[in-house]
Amino acid sequence: METMRWVDGCLEILDQTLLPGKAEYIKCEQYTTVCDAICRLSVRGAPAIGAAAAYGLVLGAAALKPAGKDEFIAAVEQIARNLSVTRPTAVNLQWALDRMLRVLHNYTSGNVEDLKETLLREAHAIYAEDLESNRRMGEFGEKLVPTNAAILTHCNAGALATAGIGTALGVIRAAHQAGKNISVYADETRPLLQGARLTTWEMVQEKIPVTLLTDNMAGYLMACGKVDLVIVGADRIAANGDVANKIGTYGVAVLAKEHGLPFYVAAPMSTIDFNIASGQGIPIENRDDREVTCFAGQQVAPEGVKVWNPAFDVTPAHLVTAIITDRGVARPPYTETLAALAGR
Amino acid sequence: METMRWVDGCLEILDQTLLPGKAEYIKCEQYTTVCDAICRLSVRGAPAIGAAAAYGLVLGAAALKPAGKDEFIAAVEQIARNLSVTRPTAVNLQWALDRMLRVLHNYTSGNVEDLKETLLREAHAIYAEDLESNRRMGEFGEKLVPTNAAILTHCNAGALATAGIGTALGVIRAAHQAGKNISVYADETRPLLQGARLTTWEMVQEKIPVTLLTDNMAGYLMACGKVDLVIVGADRIAANGDVANKIGTYGVAVLAKEHGLPFYVAAPMSTIDFNIASGQGIPIENRDDREVTCFAGQQVAPEGVKVWNPAFDVTPAHLVTAIITDRGVARPPYTETLAALAGR
Repeated sequence: METMRWVDGCLEILDQTLLPGKAEYIKCEQYTTVCDAICRLSVRGAPAIGAAAAYGLVLGAAALKPAGKDEFIAAVEQIARNLSVTRPTAVNLQWALDRMLRVLHNYTSGNVEDLKETLLREAHAIYAEDLESNRRMGEFGEKLVPTNAAILTHCNAGALATAGIGTALGVIRAAHQAGKNISVYADETRPLLQGARLTTWEMVQEKIPVTLLTDNMAGYLMACGKVDLVIVGADRIAANGDVANKIGTYGVAVLAKEHGLPFYVAAPMSTIDFNIASGQGIPIENRDDREVTCFAGQQVAPEGVKVWNPAFDVTPAHLVTAIITDRGVARPPYTETLAALAGR
Repeated sequence: METMRWVDGCLEILDQTLLPGKAEYIKCEQYTTVCDAICRLSVRGAPAIGAAAAYGLVLGAAALKPAGKDEFIAAVEQIARNLSVTRPTAVNLQWALDRMLRVLHNYTSGNVEDLKETLLREAHAIYAEDLESNRRMGEFGEKLVPTNAAILTHCNAGALATAGIGTALGVIRAAHQAGKNISVYADETRPLLQGARLTTWEMVQEKIPVTLLTDNMAGYLMACGKVDLVIVGADRIAANGDVANKIGTYGVAVLAKEHGLPFYVAAPMSTIDFNIASGQGIPIENRDDREVTCFAGQQVAPEGVKVWNPAFDVTPAHLVTAIITDRGVARPPYTETLAALAGR
């Protein structure tokens, strides 16, 4: 099942809010439908929203009937701004849009229709490269996973979060395919249950042994000696290796340290934001109270109760054992090793 | 609103599974209805299930029409066994039943009807003493709470878990009444959401400022500097101060240590099990998979996924700053200070 697909000039997005109950695609003919799909997490996961935004830009550009190239460029820049504000934390969104805008600005001919085609080719390239990037992360990361390892993961950093086999779950898939007899523990990941709904679904389909637990069980799971290592994805990594990822990741990292367990982060280079020195500079999205006060559509808390609902947290670099990228595995000190991987 | 009440020879139990949506009482005319109510968490919280079990024993005894006192005693002992196996972790359940059985065994006359009345008086005493015990814990514990403190709590250790103002929430209520301008953060407490459903409900009713968060947000909340101290209840405390409490408590304790925050446990002396040397000896209840995979009848995880669902975890004594009891505040080393409070 593909996270998204380009069919006859439309972007079709798998509506992940309906999984695992239903597998339905949202047909996006306009870029605003893509904006909505990103906002409501029908498509989510840093690499996936990067690719979706690139295709969104293509859809927006295709609908334009500009008087000339300058007008076209100005209108596409506005579409990029509208797409970029849908979610603030995952840097891959801006990274993909910046890449599309570079193609736009570097285009020398005045043929707007041909430029539209060029943008589509770039979106396809972003998608295809993510697929290949996942494969490489799996290859690098798999070497860190011992035989018979029990792996805890948080949220969904899987195929559904990317164009390929996933980041954290890509490493898990690669270890499984290498015959390492691994098993997975999946935090359910409140409030939106990406672990319960998406990660277990991916693992069940792959026949990788998986056990679901609520987020607050991770500590006791480790204390019972049931976990060998932790692997998670990332939404943005600062230049110093601080990692913004789904809310709860930080708590899991602290628990891993308490129990002397390796804590790995798997993310493509496009998730590293060298413009931000540390996690303090990463914008953290706050989402609607109802994600917390309701569960599966049903109100569970008293009406009007105050809620705190940050969608992400920041795990400081000192809690991260290694960062598995598509260019290799970075170890502390990350300021140096990440820059080296990027060739900076 | 009372957690339970004795009306015309019946025990009425507030059905906490329906809160905060509905406030309905379950009328228990037979002791087996009390067993069911404890099993399905209509009444929960260590002190509350102790009192409910005592009243359950009274109901079971009242229905007996024995040929003589010996037959009566044997039948009541069997009823006590049936009540005691409803839930394994909270020691107050067994403590209350043992206390009832002592009354049974110490009764010298052969008048069974009078013995039934004596048992009812003992159940009333257990209930009334818990109320007074809560008040004293509040008095002792309130002194540990600084002015303007923001307090994180987990699960519901409130009025709904006891006969009175609560254990952890009793301390919070006492600090509020002392004019300390406190505020509360409530972990929602998956899988059964006692924090979202019950703790926020109690705090809203008392007009104590409360903010709800999912369990996995506690770490980031502390990292953001929003918490001054943690107070939780307990289901069983070993002689060395290891604390069994609602699943997730251990994770919060590790996070409190990481952030240098005091971690307090509030529990009556009846929660301390001097027969168990350390937390390793405390039985941990595992509950039904569907508590994790479903909510309000709605399936949220793929069909047939494996689940781990322990209802409690154990927080080692070295993570506990102090234990607030109804006889005073114990500090490490707990093996000595808890024994001293118990006069052992």
